[in-house]
Amino acid sequence: MKINNKNYKTIWFNEKEKFVEIIDQTKLPHSLNIIPLKTLADVIIAIKTMQVRGAPLIGGTAAYGLVMAMKEDPTDANLYAASQGLLASRPTAVNLKSSVIIMNNKLKELPDKERFEASLLIAKNVCLEDEKCCKQIGLYGKQIISDFIKNNDRKEINILTHCNAGWLATIDWGTATSPIYHAIKDGIKVHVWVDETRPRNQGASLTSYELTNEKVSNTIISDNAGGLLMSEGKVDMCITGTDRVLSNGDVINKIGTYLKALAAFDNNIPFYVALPGTTIDYENNKVTDTMIEYRAAEELTYVSGIDNEGVLKKVRIFPKDCNVLNPAFDLTPGKFITGLITEKGVFQSTADGLSKYRSQ
Amino acid sequence: MKINNKNYKTIWFNEKEKFVEIIDQTKLPHSLNIIPLKTLADVIIAIKTMQVRGAPLIGGTAAYGLVMAMKEDPTDANLYAASQGLLASRPTAVNLKSSVIIMNNKLKELPDKERFEASLLIAKNVCLEDEKCCKQIGLYGKQIISDFIKNNDRKEINILTHCNAGWLATIDWGTATSPIYHAIKDGIKVHVWVDETRPRNQGASLTSYELTNEKVSNTIISDNAGGLLMSEGKVDMCITGTDRVLSNGDVINKIGTYLKALAAFDNNIPFYVALPGTTIDYENNKVTDTMIEYRAAEELTYVSGIDNEGVLKKVRIFPKDCNVLNPAFDLTPGKFITGLITEKGVFQSTADGLSKYRSQ
Repeated sequence: MKINNKNYKTIWFNEKEKFVEIIDQTKLPHSLNIIPLKTLADVIIAIKTMQVRGAPLIGGTAAYGLVMAMKEDPTDANLYAASQGLLASRPTAVNLKSSVIIMNNKLKELPDKERFEASLLIAKNVCLEDEKCCKQIGLYGKQIISDFIKNNDRKEINILTHCNAGWLATIDWGTATSPIYHAIKDGIKVHVWVDETRPRNQGASLTSYELTNEKVSNTIISDNAGGLLMSEGKVDMCITGTDRVLSNGDVINKIGTYLKALAAFDNNIPFYVALPGTTIDYENNKVTDTMIEYRAAEELTYVSGIDNEGVLKKVRIFPKDCNVLNPAFDLTPGKFITGLITEKGVFQSTADGLSKYRSQ
Repeated sequence: MKINNKNYKTIWFNEKEKFVEIIDQTKLPHSLNIIPLKTLADVIIAIKTMQVRGAPLIGGTAAYGLVMAMKEDPTDANLYAASQGLLASRPTAVNLKSSVIIMNNKLKELPDKERFEASLLIAKNVCLEDEKCCKQIGLYGKQIISDFIKNNDRKEINILTHCNAGWLATIDWGTATSPIYHAIKDGIKVHVWVDETRPRNQGASLTSYELTNEKVSNTIISDNAGGLLMSEGKVDMCITGTDRVLSNGDVINKIGTYLKALAAFDNNIPFYVALPGTTIDYENNKVTDTMIEYRAAEELTYVSGIDNEGVLKKVRIFPKDCNVLNPAFDLTPGKFITGLITEKGVFQSTADGLSKYRSQ
């Protein structure tokens, strides 16, 4: 997708230099920095510090992490160590685990000397598959939007989204935003309400940034405002992404998603969750503290922005010595979700719905 | 209540200098600035720029605004002009209107030369009445907390609050916090979850600040986090304030209150709203755009905090040229509210409940 009218993906392999390049998302929206990931350590730091984030993009980045590891040392010992390091870098990430498993299954069968080249092919394929998934999600989601427009005889649709499940969270297209981009390609007029998404403000910093760069009409609101807008009839549909769908159809996503799902339910507004199948966790039907990811207080206490001299500054906005709790994700019960928009179609957010997804 | 172990009220009359003094709440929590309001214009600016805020405190400040107006020029013409100026300064404020009506009714009967001294007595009485109300709210609310502790055989209670309905929003004690302060005086252990309350962060900047200064255990959370904490059983009760109770029992309060009420309802957690009777708007049972108060985008786009050199800086946190919508209040239907804690007791958030309040 486009930034300043130029096409980008979130991650790519620099064939000449033989390293990975990413957009450093911690610097957005204030500056567009492309940075190299030359080693496995660089990749792990990028995931840990959220230079890359978003479930599908973390999956793609982890795959490239093993590429850099195989470039350094293609032995079984290093494959194991690198895999463990990646798994520990963001324990909440289901897609990261999927990527590590795919890479391991394929690389273990190969002699050491073939592993670097093979891993590169697999990593590219992981990313390509994600792109395809996101495109398909877009096509299925677009149909829902198009049906809404037709059935309600509307000229425009207002969609609310939380956090960033846009192309910056994936390789391209995004999950929650892909239906929007595809609807717009079909000539449907879409306006997006973008939740700021405290504490890291990925809605304001990333979703609004990417929508504006794609010339999609959007308005940033505080996380507190969505309920009011829904009760006033200003929201027609919600679409979010997810970091993990539990086997019972409950959805773990950025903190605050649950509150928006409750408000949508109370106002009879459809609430969709968009995801590639790699986000489904068939092994768990209960949320754990690890899945919630309690993160550093500093994410809430400090905020970065541009001062009146144009310099990026970090400022402390809370009182000194305050106590802060910073859970990153919450659980939205499947009963509040209208449907899961996947690359295979739209499924119910129930154990049965996920079985149907799996069997297709 | 205490700041740095010294007792304060939010507003008082400096008898020697014959002007009003307030705590400038836009500078909290980073510095404690006491500023004089020497003219009606100073008072209007203080209300408009939210140096004073919170429904009851705005009421008290408006009363003092008329005192300063009567000091300058005690004629009918000036009483009228000053009243109109105050009413326009914060059109959402029910208590402001109540104060202006009380002052006008009493001052109109008096000759000009008696108006300044009389207005001062009335203003002091408006503030004293608010203090008494808040104390009574505390005593009725404390009973609810004490019953919870007894009925559930608990050693501690976790209370979630939104925005600042603490003593800084009133003259003293607060509305939502008064039950907490009174429960603690009775030896009950209370921990408070403080919603950050974007966009102006009054939870983090004011509620946490005042609780910490009163040595009350409290933790700041993002506005997004309350739903998760409720679903995890970490919240026993919610208590908020309100800026306006409609005649049908629906509650208008800081944006985001509705979302917390929905989450409390979904998790069977009692949700109380604390208020002095002056906050009840018997004339309206429908919310209007004026009551929602659409405020400047800058409140969301810019954030103030202390930089690493200890200087208070304002930084822009959103992308340039983004669109922002900033509604300040939302409506929580009465059906989601367990009870209204008033100075006359606890009432149902229905038209019937408000009639009962009125007839007592």
